[in-house]
Amino acid sequence: MQQSKLVVVGLGHVGSYVLSYAMDSGLYSEIVTIDIEPKIALGEAVDQAQSTGVMGTTHTYCHAGDYSDCKDADIIIVAAGASIVPDPNDPERLPDRSELAGLSGVVVRDVMSNIVQHTKDAVIIFITNPLDAVVHVAVTEFDYPTHKIFGTGTMLDSARLRYAIGQELGIDPKSVTGYMIGEHGSTALPALSQVNVFGLGWEELGQWRGSALPSAPEMQERVIRSAYDVLLNKGWTNAGVARSANALAKCLLIGERSVHPICTLITDGIYDLPEVSLSLPTFIEPEGWAKRLQPQLNDWEIEQLHHSAKFILDTVENTKQ
Amino acid sequence: MQQSKLVVVGLGHVGSYVLSYAMDSGLYSEIVTIDIEPKIALGEAVDQAQSTGVMGTTHTYCHAGDYSDCKDADIIIVAAGASIVPDPNDPERLPDRSELAGLSGVVVRDVMSNIVQHTKDAVIIFITNPLDAVVHVAVTEFDYPTHKIFGTGTMLDSARLRYAIGQELGIDPKSVTGYMIGEHGSTALPALSQVNVFGLGWEELGQWRGSALPSAPEMQERVIRSAYDVLLNKGWTNAGVARSANALAKCLLIGERSVHPICTLITDGIYDLPEVSLSLPTFIEPEGWAKRLQPQLNDWEIEQLHHSAKFILDTVENTKQ
Amino acid sequence: MQQSKLVVVGLGHVGSYVLSYAMDSGLYSEIVTIDIEPKIALGEAVDQAQSTGVMGTTHTYCHAGDYSDCKDADIIIVAAGASIVPDPNDPERLPDRSELAGLSGVVVRDVMSNIVQHTKDAVIIFITNPLDAVVHVAVTEFDYPTHKIFGTGTMLDSARLRYAIGQELGIDPKSVTGYMIGEHGSTALPALSQVNVFGLGWEELGQWRGSALPSAPEMQERVIRSAYDVLLNKGWTNAGVARSANALAKCLLIGERSVHPICTLITDGIYDLPEVSLSLPTFIEPEGWAKRLQPQLNDWEIEQLHHSAKFILDTVENTKQ
Amino acid sequence: MQQSKLVVVGLGHVGSYVLSYAMDSGLYSEIVTIDIEPKIALGEAVDQAQSTGVMGTTHTYCHAGDYSDCKDADIIIVAAGASIVPDPNDPERLPDRSELAGLSGVVVRDVMSNIVQHTKDAVIIFITNPLDAVVHVAVTEFDYPTHKIFGTGTMLDSARLRYAIGQELGIDPKSVTGYMIGEHGSTALPALSQVNVFGLGWEELGQWRGSALPSAPEMQERVIRSAYDVLLNKGWTNAGVARSANALAKCLLIGERSVHPICTLITDGIYDLPEVSLSLPTFIEPEGWAKRLQPQLNDWEIEQLHHSAKFILDTVENTKQ
Repeated sequence: MQQSKLVVVGLGHVGSYVLSYAMDSGLYSEIVTIDIEPKIALGEAVDQAQSTGVMGTTHTYCHAGDYSDCKDADIIIVAAGASIVPDPNDPERLPDRSELAGLSGVVVRDVMSNIVQHTKDAVIIFITNPLDAVVHVAVTEFDYPTHKIFGTGTMLDSARLRYAIGQELGIDPKSVTGYMIGEHGSTALPALSQVNVFGLGWEELGQWRGSALPSAPEMQERVIRSAYDVLLNKGWTNAGVARSANALAKCLLIGERSVHPICTLITDGIYDLPEVSLSLPTFIEPEGWAKRLQPQLNDWEIEQLHHSAKFILDTVENTKQ
Repeated sequence: MQQSKLVVVGLGHVGSYVLSYAMDSGLYSEIVTIDIEPKIALGEAVDQAQSTGVMGTTHTYCHAGDYSDCKDADIIIVAAGASIVPDPNDPERLPDRSELAGLSGVVVRDVMSNIVQHTKDAVIIFITNPLDAVVHVAVTEFDYPTHKIFGTGTMLDSARLRYAIGQELGIDPKSVTGYMIGEHGSTALPALSQVNVFGLGWEELGQWRGSALPSAPEMQERVIRSAYDVLLNKGWTNAGVARSANALAKCLLIGERSVHPICTLITDGIYDLPEVSLSLPTFIEPEGWAKRLQPQLNDWEIEQLHHSAKFILDTVENTKQ
Repeated sequence: MQQSKLVVVGLGHVGSYVLSYAMDSGLYSEIVTIDIEPKIALGEAVDQAQSTGVMGTTHTYCHAGDYSDCKDADIIIVAAGASIVPDPNDPERLPDRSELAGLSGVVVRDVMSNIVQHTKDAVIIFITNPLDAVVHVAVTEFDYPTHKIFGTGTMLDSARLRYAIGQELGIDPKSVTGYMIGEHGSTALPALSQVNVFGLGWEELGQWRGSALPSAPEMQERVIRSAYDVLLNKGWTNAGVARSANALAKCLLIGERSVHPICTLITDGIYDLPEVSLSLPTFIEPEGWAKRLQPQLNDWEIEQLHHSAKFILDTVENTKQ
Repeated sequence: MQQSKLVVVGLGHVGSYVLSYAMDSGLYSEIVTIDIEPKIALGEAVDQAQSTGVMGTTHTYCHAGDYSDCKDADIIIVAAGASIVPDPNDPERLPDRSELAGLSGVVVRDVMSNIVQHTKDAVIIFITNPLDAVVHVAVTEFDYPTHKIFGTGTMLDSARLRYAIGQELGIDPKSVTGYMIGEHGSTALPALSQVNVFGLGWEELGQWRGSALPSAPEMQERVIRSAYDVLLNKGWTNAGVARSANALAKCLLIGERSVHPICTLITDGIYDLPEVSLSLPTFIEPEGWAKRLQPQLNDWEIEQLHHSAKFILDTVENTKQ
């Protein structure tokens, strides 16, 4: 009997939600928690394990473990590392994920060093911020199959974009086809040239509702700001990105072959980009990500994408300090 | 406590799957079955009710009833009427939904006559074929709020289109944005001008995979033929349309405000269409369908749409014989 | 990546529901249909595959196949064989599953002969009636690991018992602990000595509601009769048994280690039973069934259990004719 | 169209999980968050709302609100108030829920004062600790229908008991029938006299596995201690109780009529108990809880139950200081 195994590394605000949704998915025979603080890994695992006594749940074997558990893991989701937090002295200032570069650089190198001792088979999905720099470090500094490492990327930013468009039009966000690309962070850009609702593009949608929709820079600003609507109020964000990571894990495990805007290492010069890790719509096979789509971006989008790439590479440098 | 109630009229191959998926949805307090053969309604209801003793199911109150049960129903799904069946003497001939016009005309008039005696509040979702003619008769011949009657329309044809495109590209059909419009039947047309995968249109997708995708008439032929891949082999089709009807019911009940290609009465001359009932992408509010999207169709698509409209109106005439 | 594979053999009324629920479970990478009529296997598989284009479904790879597909299957569910059907000349007569013995004997021997050519690793779950005789033939006549073959047994009868008790008490059937044992059929018996609602036994429950509950023979008669409430009205029963088979498959695949009243070969003389296949509460490990529970039955129950065993062995003889 | 509305009061560690599972349930048209810190209510609501842009989610309308939103609510889940936390100066000391009495007394009186201004129709489910004292204050000090107020009670303790028994026996906790009664807290007691696995009682289960199971006081100590395995490691517990609250909410909304060990006001002298609020197995109707089951407890259980009742009444007194 094929047994499916998930390892969650880092059980903070995001990792605990990843764990919780993974338990609810009913997909896994075994889920292992790893945290730099073993008590946290243990407490979260036991809390979820006890939950399997509640009617209607799946009896997944959930327990705290260590990196040797990666040996036969199918998927490893890494949510370790610090969160960006509001500045208590200046609560209105918008903290940036890139400020975590130094700390997260240490974390990702530690996590990868540990994983590679036990497996090169599992697909590793990163959530740790600054996401793109973290993925870049993991892919370029370790001898692990490139297509088996990626990040949730702009899946969350894309959900926020669809939600914002849904709000504008008064419709279900999932009736909107659209996504953000580039950095998961403040330089992410909405690919409005590709947005559509059942084929109706940006201008047509404005006509449909009777007034023009916001411009690309306005939508960009709004989506990026909307992350802070959560962060500055609640103190962190976790619901959307944890659901996205679980959707990716299911896509891999079942072999759904879906397309998602995930963060992968770019080496083929697409859009004349340098070697960088960022998000573009990417086709995912059971064994890892396979190839990217290359939508026809407009000038503003390409300019912003290059700006995003540069910002990510600067952040990568900052992980080395 | 708000109690949610679904009535399923017609418990044949399609209605029984509608019932089964509705039970699994966990959304309803009460589900009532009505069939012209009371034994069928009873047997299906008892079979599902007994299933609530299986662990993990929802304890929905499921029972056979009559039209007086429509009084406080939220949603009525009508799957009554005959199915198109392969001709035993000529099993390769493709039977057409429109051949059921006479019989289904009697059925829909009987069902509506019964429903209107008890409610004008429930939203009525038709699945009975020939679907568009059936919806047209129900909406135009009975004094029932127009926006509270619609049909599953080309939702199933659209799922088949996305599946066919997914097969061509080797990807998850749900990564494909695209739909069929017009008749639910042999004159349905793929709106390829609106098809995209994350914004990449038909030609770009061909470039992505390295060879041109089929033409619109080829895709049209393939999708329509694919219905017969099921029908001529299995004897009927039910899985996709029953899932579509349940998705519409949830959309209404929860108020998801999604867009779906459903069959509604057209009176506003969109695309210079005559008064006819057919499928176009349509926005659905909690109380019923609200308004249509008007994608910019190309000449072939508009021509085919008018052809489809004419075919439907001819079928409506045939329901009167 | 561990890929999970289910094979469904026999796509009639029961098998098609098994397939449909398995698709909805989202658990499988691949589902294969096999039927003695290849057209049925093809039609059902294509119908479900096209459904993966409906929003909210899982993109499972579903296709028609042959027995060579069993090679790397995790689980094989066998629903092949005839159904008991009402006698058109005497629609009130209650047909018995055992009447199918001769026909099903041929079917099970054919199915097993084919499976063993390709695997001895998959767990085989039988639904084919007369269930106990079919399991007995499969386990005793073929060189296949005994613990990897079992039948849905009295899971369905047990669901009906809980439903009947739930009806008596006006409560959710799933708040009732209780089950039927022995044959899946007209000699099944309710183990009322073990029935309880949160620990309250049969007499206490009668006191709770204010009037005595029916006797064991009455409950036995009612539950067995309730199958015919479905069969004689609808023409077959499928919803409950198909959900039960899927629950067993998930239990195996995820390794839930649950207890269910399933049909297994008895060789240890439990309750002084002869070598026979029938249902008792049984603990299920990931690799197959592991061991039985031995509840303290009362005299009537033990007598009925022996009666059931004898009936099954007679039916086994009839499969040889 | 019947629209279902949930209000969650208190969005801390527990309330945020309640919200998250409620969103995933797909049951609600509208979910409203209320917190004494409006920023928290806003941040949590927006985080979940943005999540509706993730594929596969339900488009529930989720937003921050105030008590006027209770007016047309179906269900109000109250998770407001402080959590018990490990003592930083003595991290091994086991803090007790009753230490929160004073603070939670203020909270529950404030919450109830606000709710009663807007509704007496919604069912109110409390999670706030010390749970039993909180329920007692809410039911006895406010003019609200008694059967419409209850607490999650020992549902979580019961899940932990079933998990512990499952661990002992090596089986799925959900194959175990069993529950804790009395206080949700350190005086809760396992009703081992009622525990069974498919009818096998405590001693029989020991025989089945080949060695006696622990005594009642040992199981009591273990289950109560197991809460601290989570609390002292993770800092709080939330997964199990949040899932339990959602199960109760679904039971009410769909009218499942299940039995659960919930905390209700006792006034009928059952077990010669004084007027007190504590957990016993209780039947739940759509409009609220209806009546209790009275299992035949043994002497130790009755003694412990009275001990638990006394402890709760003392805690109620402490809420008044």
